[in-house]
Amino acid sequence: MNHPARQVGDDDTDDDCMSTDDAAALLTRYRHVRDASLVHCASLQTEDFGLQAVPETSPAKWHLAHTAWFFETFLLRPFLQGYTEYNAGYAYLFNSYYNGVGAQFPRAERGLLSRPTVEEVIRYRAHVDHAMAQLLNQQDHRDIAVILSRTRLGLHHEYQHQELLFTDLKYNFHCNPLLPAWQPATLPVSDTQTPQTWHRFAGGLSHLGVDEEPDQFCFDNETPRHQTLLQPFRLATRPLCNAEVLAFIEDGGYRNPALWLADGWARVQEGRWQHPLYWQQDAHGAWHNFTLHGLQPLDPAATACHLSAYEADALARWAGARLPTEAEWEHAANSQLAARSPAASPALSGHFLDQGMRHPTAAAADTGPLQQLFGSVWEWTANSYSPYPGYRPAAGAIGEYNGKFMCNQLVLRGGSCVSARQHIRPSYRNFFYPGDRWQFSGVRLARDDRPETAR
Amino acid sequence: MNHPARQVGDDDTDDDCMSTDDAAALLTRYRHVRDASLVHCASLQTEDFGLQAVPETSPAKWHLAHTAWFFETFLLRPFLQGYTEYNAGYAYLFNSYYNGVGAQFPRAERGLLSRPTVEEVIRYRAHVDHAMAQLLNQQDHRDIAVILSRTRLGLHHEYQHQELLFTDLKYNFHCNPLLPAWQPATLPVSDTQTPQTWHRFAGGLSHLGVDEEPDQFCFDNETPRHQTLLQPFRLATRPLCNAEVLAFIEDGGYRNPALWLADGWARVQEGRWQHPLYWQQDAHGAWHNFTLHGLQPLDPAATACHLSAYEADALARWAGARLPTEAEWEHAANSQLAARSPAASPALSGHFLDQGMRHPTAAAADTGPLQQLFGSVWEWTANSYSPYPGYRPAAGAIGEYNGKFMCNQLVLRGGSCVSARQHIRPSYRNFFYPGDRWQFSGVRLARDDRPETAR
Amino acid sequence: MNHPARQVGDDDTDDDCMSTDDAAALLTRYRHVRDASLVHCASLQTEDFGLQAVPETSPAKWHLAHTAWFFETFLLRPFLQGYTEYNAGYAYLFNSYYNGVGAQFPRAERGLLSRPTVEEVIRYRAHVDHAMAQLLNQQDHRDIAVILSRTRLGLHHEYQHQELLFTDLKYNFHCNPLLPAWQPATLPVSDTQTPQTWHRFAGGLSHLGVDEEPDQFCFDNETPRHQTLLQPFRLATRPLCNAEVLAFIEDGGYRNPALWLADGWARVQEGRWQHPLYWQQDAHGAWHNFTLHGLQPLDPAATACHLSAYEADALARWAGARLPTEAEWEHAANSQLAARSPAASPALSGHFLDQGMRHPTAAAADTGPLQQLFGSVWEWTANSYSPYPGYRPAAGAIGEYNGKFMCNQLVLRGGSCVSARQHIRPSYRNFFYPGDRWQFSGVRLARDDRPETAR
Amino acid sequence: MNHPARQVGDDDTDDDCMSTDDAAALLTRYRHVRDASLVHCASLQTEDFGLQAVPETSPAKWHLAHTAWFFETFLLRPFLQGYTEYNAGYAYLFNSYYNGVGAQFPRAERGLLSRPTVEEVIRYRAHVDHAMAQLLNQQDHRDIAVILSRTRLGLHHEYQHQELLFTDLKYNFHCNPLLPAWQPATLPVSDTQTPQTWHRFAGGLSHLGVDEEPDQFCFDNETPRHQTLLQPFRLATRPLCNAEVLAFIEDGGYRNPALWLADGWARVQEGRWQHPLYWQQDAHGAWHNFTLHGLQPLDPAATACHLSAYEADALARWAGARLPTEAEWEHAANSQLAARSPAASPALSGHFLDQGMRHPTAAAADTGPLQQLFGSVWEWTANSYSPYPGYRPAAGAIGEYNGKFMCNQLVLRGGSCVSARQHIRPSYRNFFYPGDRWQFSGVRLARDDRPETAR
Repeated sequence: MNHPARQVGDDDTDDDCMSTDDAAALLTRYRHVRDASLVHCASLQTEDFGLQAVPETSPAKWHLAHTAWFFETFLLRPFLQGYTEYNAGYAYLFNSYYNGVGAQFPRAERGLLSRPTVEEVIRYRAHVDHAMAQLLNQQDHRDIAVILSRTRLGLHHEYQHQELLFTDLKYNFHCNPLLPAWQPATLPVSDTQTPQTWHRFAGGLSHLGVDEEPDQFCFDNETPRHQTLLQPFRLATRPLCNAEVLAFIEDGGYRNPALWLADGWARVQEGRWQHPLYWQQDAHGAWHNFTLHGLQPLDPAATACHLSAYEADALARWAGARLPTEAEWEHAANSQLAARSPAASPALSGHFLDQGMRHPTAAAADTGPLQQLFGSVWEWTANSYSPYPGYRPAAGAIGEYNGKFMCNQLVLRGGSCVSARQHIRPSYRNFFYPGDRWQFSGVRLARDDRPETAR
Repeated sequence: MNHPARQVGDDDTDDDCMSTDDAAALLTRYRHVRDASLVHCASLQTEDFGLQAVPETSPAKWHLAHTAWFFETFLLRPFLQGYTEYNAGYAYLFNSYYNGVGAQFPRAERGLLSRPTVEEVIRYRAHVDHAMAQLLNQQDHRDIAVILSRTRLGLHHEYQHQELLFTDLKYNFHCNPLLPAWQPATLPVSDTQTPQTWHRFAGGLSHLGVDEEPDQFCFDNETPRHQTLLQPFRLATRPLCNAEVLAFIEDGGYRNPALWLADGWARVQEGRWQHPLYWQQDAHGAWHNFTLHGLQPLDPAATACHLSAYEADALARWAGARLPTEAEWEHAANSQLAARSPAASPALSGHFLDQGMRHPTAAAADTGPLQQLFGSVWEWTANSYSPYPGYRPAAGAIGEYNGKFMCNQLVLRGGSCVSARQHIRPSYRNFFYPGDRWQFSGVRLARDDRPETAR
Repeated sequence: MNHPARQVGDDDTDDDCMSTDDAAALLTRYRHVRDASLVHCASLQTEDFGLQAVPETSPAKWHLAHTAWFFETFLLRPFLQGYTEYNAGYAYLFNSYYNGVGAQFPRAERGLLSRPTVEEVIRYRAHVDHAMAQLLNQQDHRDIAVILSRTRLGLHHEYQHQELLFTDLKYNFHCNPLLPAWQPATLPVSDTQTPQTWHRFAGGLSHLGVDEEPDQFCFDNETPRHQTLLQPFRLATRPLCNAEVLAFIEDGGYRNPALWLADGWARVQEGRWQHPLYWQQDAHGAWHNFTLHGLQPLDPAATACHLSAYEADALARWAGARLPTEAEWEHAANSQLAARSPAASPALSGHFLDQGMRHPTAAAADTGPLQQLFGSVWEWTANSYSPYPGYRPAAGAIGEYNGKFMCNQLVLRGGSCVSARQHIRPSYRNFFYPGDRWQFSGVRLARDDRPETAR
Repeated sequence: MNHPARQVGDDDTDDDCMSTDDAAALLTRYRHVRDASLVHCASLQTEDFGLQAVPETSPAKWHLAHTAWFFETFLLRPFLQGYTEYNAGYAYLFNSYYNGVGAQFPRAERGLLSRPTVEEVIRYRAHVDHAMAQLLNQQDHRDIAVILSRTRLGLHHEYQHQELLFTDLKYNFHCNPLLPAWQPATLPVSDTQTPQTWHRFAGGLSHLGVDEEPDQFCFDNETPRHQTLLQPFRLATRPLCNAEVLAFIEDGGYRNPALWLADGWARVQEGRWQHPLYWQQDAHGAWHNFTLHGLQPLDPAATACHLSAYEADALARWAGARLPTEAEWEHAANSQLAARSPAASPALSGHFLDQGMRHPTAAAADTGPLQQLFGSVWEWTANSYSPYPGYRPAAGAIGEYNGKFMCNQLVLRGGSCVSARQHIRPSYRNFFYPGDRWQFSGVRLARDDRPETAR
């Protein structure tokens, strides 16, 4: 077997033109994104599409249907005159959590829907795509501004589900002792490990968030742009790698309550956690890592992932550090981007979904002061997911997209190797519960930059 | 849509020759039974094969694989020299509960096995069938007697899983609001309802069970034959029908604790039971019944099914009657068979799996003193599933087949409309937990035959 | 500390005159039994009265109040003109499970009732006792027959709760690492172990159960007397002792699924059972046993107790034996009693509640062919708790006493060291779930008496 | 019955001299605080001391013992030479969550400890108090600074448990249908309702938190003092009152998912919430409120309490407002205190534990621009409980006091009617899970102060 080939979007040199698009350009983009969802599933067997091991991992088929439902519900039904639903029952089956548009089929039972079949869902998507083309061709539609804006939202929604499609599939495959691979391959093992050093930031007033602008897509939870006050701080030049997690394990990290938040320690005991998700040790003591390309020898230099925030926090405490705040992370990200040559491509550089490999690699020293800031792994922050000062959710059911989750979850930043490149921004706020491990989530350390913090 | 056509075994006039077979005849039988398992699945979509809504309803694919595993484990591996396993991982994946041959993949997670795919499982079956043909052709094998005997056991095991395939599929389909049908059809509604009357039995010493004999297959739990003492009793001429269950509902039966066993009442409240499983009432108050042929108007005259033993017991108490004992039931069954003309076919008459319709019909008055004793619905007895006096399970792992379940379950008798005709005998003891409802289980009333029992 | 002194009823030479009593004698008996309930609690601290570690172990205070409630509900309210309830709220608080007389405070929350206080409950009992004396003094009451009969029932009900008071208290004390004792004492350790041998019974038709008679109290579940057919069998001369259970443990009995019923094995794993309830091993490997007299060194010769039916069954299978049936046990008990000298006291001999020691001792070889048949430990039978042929429960709410539990439980026979002597009869049927361990339950082995059963 | 009399500390004119105390003054304070814990329990029955309805409500007895354990563990054992433990078993039984000093008896089972008895626990407290007096009299102890500091911490720990003693008792009493009262009384009903208006704050840089200083006690989680940037905001002049919650109920607030956070809505449905905890509606529709003084008619003007953060958030959304942030709240509190006359008593004014009444009253318009800021009810903030920039927990096991809970909980501010007055400061950060309702928790609304926020 070989290294995973490059994938969808390989030669995708277009930047995210979605924001400045007219309807015609947006339709082109629409087709590109929608097709990609199917291409990502090309190597699956029909049986794989229905798996749901735990309530939070939806079946691939459900992701494909729900993203079509989104366009049908928020665009076709309200705006396309004469639109006929593909199947009236889908309004209930494929609503995820929008109470504003009706009841939902129970999330935990999505894996029980053998019907509609995969083929039928693909037909449903085609039906929706056909109608969306009709709608986007009505350039003089009196609601064209809303239509374009919601279509962009729908495509970013589709990006999110493309990512979930991979994280969910990985989790579900892992429950099968045969350990199926999304795409079998032999992953490379790194020769050397890039040292972790610290990058200083002076602190002071800094802007956080963005304002919604016609030419720049963002979610409502990134708004409004506002100032915040930062203390001097340092950020690690790269996320923690597997070798560091191994050292934590060997130092008894998973058995020492002093390193853990109280709720984290409860979870360690309840879940009998002894290592990150997807790691396994063979009879000879060698560590392996289950990936979307099959089981692989653990690469010590590769960036660690599938860590919960509890593990991230414990690793940080063990290392005499802490997690960065959202404001610190975003400030650093903006600084890094501002330092780029003006001629640089507007696209973020990093390991995203357009790379063939669905697993993080080792950080490379030559890629900037802060390596792997974008792509590779989502980085946990210390912040609970909360509204920014002055935040106001969108009106109607679509306002349920983000705001109602602003409790009990923590913010993650930067995207991962299964995020679409066009989907990520410095201001992007992802959020998961602190115990969640099935995302490609890792940890970049931070420290207060004060004399006494030296250790 | 039409009435369900007749199915596998339609013109299957051969009796159960399995017992007197030589190896060649048994191989013919083997092919017939094994093929039937696949024929039963012919109308399924690939996605349907993986459904498992609750731990006790295994996926169709698992049934197909596990029955192959049985032959591989108990026949091919021990007796066929040079046999190569199809896949070494299957020994673990498809072991149901035989601790004697190794660990088992967790029952509740069978629905998470998208691999092996359906196609792969069918190849696995073909591999096993090919090897079984080789084995059965070795007529001078020094273990030929054991081989023949275990092959017969394996085929009866396959019959059991054919039945479960239908009951499990029905349950799993029911969880989908689209209510898929195994085979869509419009079921007939009966014109008239056969009255229920009582048939008297004098009691006295009676034989229960059978002895294992070379020319007559039975499970170990039916042995040994022994005497038991019966009091005079009466049995209802037919099982309860839907009209009687409706009357119970309308009389507040599901709300009156006085009618229920304590554990049954707890279950009624916990499960919010208000009617039998698969019944639903539409907005106009009309009752419908979900069947393997789709949703149907409730037929009042049809025999009631999908009743738990708790419901069976409450219905009996409400009717001033009780459930029959195993000994009463078997005595009545033997009496009925003994009264047949000597020229009658040895096959049991009744509504079995070889009929196309996978749902019980109304009892017909002209079919004997006790109608629908065999087939149609399993009849709950009052007896917990226990060893007969002198019972001894088979040696080795195969002894786990029956004996280890002899606790907390109740015996049911007579087979159902999804049992294979060749699988059922008067002495056959099926067993389920008293709260189980997903089998085709119904209730035939009994009474003590004493003056004071008249009500 | 010394051996536990003899207790209530030490010199209680009166037989159970309850059945032939006139009202006056019954009132005397009433006072004796009711006082005993309080005497049993004399060594408790106020705080001990409220403990409920699991739903099935009611607080001592609740037992004291519920038994008063029984007389109030079934005797005083219906039959004593002008009776005033002590507290109207108690009808709800202290109803155990009688749906026929109203709703019940949730069983699992009985430990949350700090009020009424212990003192208040004792006043409630006195109030009821005073009224009961009034009622029993109305010898010409037109319902005097029912009153006497229900009063007898109420006293047997009180005996049952006296026993539960001890078993529940033991369980609850055990949850406290300080291991409080009901009455601290140093229990004797036996010098020698009586060998277990086998006693033969020829089988044949035998009577089971009793008929309700005015001069002989029994519960409805012991009726009616009927014949049953026994195969030849053998019973062990004594129950299993701790040494035998230790041998089972050392032979890996708790780790070998082949010895267990399927449901039993599930419970072993879920509960991580490795030894009987209340056993503990110290750092040096020495076994100890928590008793109502405090922690004691394990006496190998003492009769084993606190075994579930699952353990009893596994021990029997390990020993190449089985559990006796109800009919075998009762036949043996009747035979043993029939063999007594006609001049013998009608009271059963055995270790009952009137002994000071609340823990079983070693069987003594000189006490009859079948030792410890009565008292010491309840003996699990192979029978699920079911109605006898022709059984009919009492009318009204009082009919809920027994019949509604006839599912999922197994019958135990013979009484234990915390049963009142006057409460036990050969026909007495106690019943618990097969996984229950907190009663003083043990196991007497049985075997078929056929040549091939010899091992 | 009358209004509750004034209680402990009625004429307690001393301010919190704990911070500037020498050892002698601290010993006086120690005795005062420790005695108060017992005085608070004076009206309890022995049985009341053991109640624990849910894991988070510890028994009163446990609070009394654990607070003694704290002094024993962190002061007497390390610092008092020759100290003899009262009972070696208590180190395990009464450790709450300090992994650094050993294992803990399971929290959920504290109610199962009938022993030690209440009397014994009081003796334990006296033993500890006696030893603490010895220790505090060693003014030349080489560790005197640590001793004084930890003693102050121990007293603030005791204040916290005094508060929990009341909130836990209230919850536990509520589970008893007899609805016992801590101290029966007839609470006054307010004549009029103070209108809620808005108070403006200009925003800008503001200080949050305090620095640890020898003369001013604070918990480590309040440190270090640091600047934060506030946007202009408005705060409601008083917390929401019952009339406003009633309006929310009548407006369908508990049935409208659009008003709730996703996790909040899940809790509403799971817990079938229809009104705040402790409210009940009688058959005539009249609302009542269970209080520590017994069941009372609901006072519409009284400040609402026992609201979860989910309810607080939904009420705010319904009212077109939001919860205040920690920084906003503390800024307002500091402003209010700064505006006081310099001659004012240093003690906070408000309804605290030194008032007899254990339930919030109506806000009074004449008590300042922001009414009931201190005392009455804890006010939920929008902030998750997180470390302040530069936060560093204390070393050793005592560092587990606060920091390890900094996840999944929200901050509440201001103290309640069952907080000790000396315990509360503007910088004080209390924290509970957003679904917790059994504290005296309420809600003060906030709004952005921008033109467009007007509604």
